[in-house]
Amino acid sequence: MGMWPMDWEMDHDSLISAGSALQKLRMYPYFDVAHYLLMCESVRADLGSSSLPFSRRHPFSCWLSSMLMCFAGGLLACFMLGEPVITPFRRHDDILLASLVWYGVFYSPFDIVHKLISLKLVKVVVSIAKEVQRTHKISHGVAYAAKLYPESYMVQVLVGVAKGAGSGVVKIVEQMKFQLVRGTWIPSQHEMLRPSFTTKACVVAALVFTLERNSMYVTAPHDLVYLVGISIFS
Amino acid sequence: MGMWPMDWEMDHDSLISAGSALQKLRMYPYFDVAHYLLMCESVRADLGSSSLPFSRRHPFSCWLSSMLMCFAGGLLACFMLGEPVITPFRRHDDILLASLVWYGVFYSPFDIVHKLISLKLVKVVVSIAKEVQRTHKISHGVAYAAKLYPESYMVQVLVGVAKGAGSGVVKIVEQMKFQLVRGTWIPSQHEMLRPSFTTKACVVAALVFTLERNSMYVTAPHDLVYLVGISIFS
Amino acid sequence: MGMWPMDWEMDHDSLISAGSALQKLRMYPYFDVAHYLLMCESVRADLGSSSLPFSRRHPFSCWLSSMLMCFAGGLLACFMLGEPVITPFRRHDDILLASLVWYGVFYSPFDIVHKLISLKLVKVVVSIAKEVQRTHKISHGVAYAAKLYPESYMVQVLVGVAKGAGSGVVKIVEQMKFQLVRGTWIPSQHEMLRPSFTTKACVVAALVFTLERNSMYVTAPHDLVYLVGISIFS
Repeated sequence: MGMWPMDWEMDHDSLISAGSALQKLRMYPYFDVAHYLLMCESVRADLGSSSLPFSRRHPFSCWLSSMLMCFAGGLLACFMLGEPVITPFRRHDDILLASLVWYGVFYSPFDIVHKLISLKLVKVVVSIAKEVQRTHKISHGVAYAAKLYPESYMVQVLVGVAKGAGSGVVKIVEQMKFQLVRGTWIPSQHEMLRPSFTTKACVVAALVFTLERNSMYVTAPHDLVYLVGISIFS
Repeated sequence: MGMWPMDWEMDHDSLISAGSALQKLRMYPYFDVAHYLLMCESVRADLGSSSLPFSRRHPFSCWLSSMLMCFAGGLLACFMLGEPVITPFRRHDDILLASLVWYGVFYSPFDIVHKLISLKLVKVVVSIAKEVQRTHKISHGVAYAAKLYPESYMVQVLVGVAKGAGSGVVKIVEQMKFQLVRGTWIPSQHEMLRPSFTTKACVVAALVFTLERNSMYVTAPHDLVYLVGISIFS
Repeated sequence: MGMWPMDWEMDHDSLISAGSALQKLRMYPYFDVAHYLLMCESVRADLGSSSLPFSRRHPFSCWLSSMLMCFAGGLLACFMLGEPVITPFRRHDDILLASLVWYGVFYSPFDIVHKLISLKLVKVVVSIAKEVQRTHKISHGVAYAAKLYPESYMVQVLVGVAKGAGSGVVKIVEQMKFQLVRGTWIPSQHEMLRPSFTTKACVVAALVFTLERNSMYVTAPHDLVYLVGISIFS
């Protein structure tokens, strides 16, 4: 018990270095792949049992839906900040990577990609990677908005949330589209009225990053905040 | 009868000075409060009998809907002019004021704010204040668009209308959302096909301000035009 | 048979000069009129049998729908590139011309404009003129996007498609609106899931123009490419 402060000190140090290491991770390509995988899988889930026939009959539409989901956060943030909404489509390697993932999810031989992700263990690993990427995006969104609007915390939080939870908003539109087409409209579990846990967690994370950046209440080292941000989601 | 021209002269003078006084009025905070009050009340009316339970179960969603309605004009005008749609959320005091009003309308003890506004007399006073604010917004919208596009009257009118009647457009989306969730879709009395009287009055007012600004047909003093603008709505 | 290469040579020359002539054609007013005519006719078709009573009861709403369809390509392209979406409404003569056409389609005495366009021959001529204008717009969209984003082919193709097939996207929203109001929702033949042949052709044309502009694979003279672009649609 007497060792506890020291223990904590050690933990503290190792936590900070873990946060620092996580922050310097390049998102491209591994973490981005995790994000794209989960987004394409969610499009596939939204399409329901008709997902494979649909992807064969309307590949272009399927691709567009997947791309909109994959780049939803960037699209929404650009729209909010008055930047060209086409910006996320500028980088060829991002689009290419997302397209490859989309192809894998919908057209892989023996449906192997989909079956692999459906495994519990793989799903957990991919989800953790995705949450690391989400924290990265929220942190970047807040930092970017803070550069443009240094005095407006509200805007910083909103852009952070848009970056992190943008796919939730685009998902509503997509689901509505699919359900209208199938003639079934089940408005039960969507983001519209009941922001999901993810969205709420994004609000908290964006708030934490914003407060930290404006060094008002959060005096912890940035690396630690970053790690906490990630652990909120994981 | 012989005194009539003089009478009119006096009226004219007093009207001009009234218009001038109205124009110099600061909108913040009293007139803005009137606008926010009516907008939050309209969100509450859209939610119908389930408004209070809804506001308890989904406070964040309720707050977001109210904010979207309160700042609808600015959002739409920014979208049209290619400026960041987040601009209306930049000023903290506006957001704070609107949030306070929202809190009052939905959560005040004994529902006192709602009951007060439901009184005929209070409603009339608040509505007049709101129309003064609306005229102010249309006039500013036209002036702002005229600075950016001095030669395009069409754009000036459109931006003026968006500023004044923006909440009507956002209201459609909100109503659709609420009704879809409740499983009832009554597409009877909405702005979509039948622009309301308010929207039409906004078109007229924006037209008058635009013509006056480009000094084509309207040679009346600006203050008088302003007063007429207000009286259109009141 | 030995003369074939020379024949082709002559054809080639005459094709190039035809393409060059077509490219220098001013779109305003004749080709634009063709486009506006078909767009207003399509709004009228969407309104179904109630189109004439509707246009009498809600002229402003009808006019707005028609304008949105007429300038859909420009609106979408502006939105994508982060420019003011109001830009297409800046030029008075465009708006005036489109309004005149709208007036003719909905209110002409004895419905003569509508009856004329319904004639097979007139329809073919108008459609060809419209496709010439469409090619012009795609080519300009690609060129404009290429100036802003010289290295991003994806963006150039997307903006080209938006310019050419933008009315298809706006049409969905309009149809949804009209059908919701009439209480009938027939989600059978719309652009949402099944991009029409036109949209696909736009993708091909935008792709061709983009590749040509970046001189990667298409080495044919620009005039020839232009002519091929037109003939894809006609």
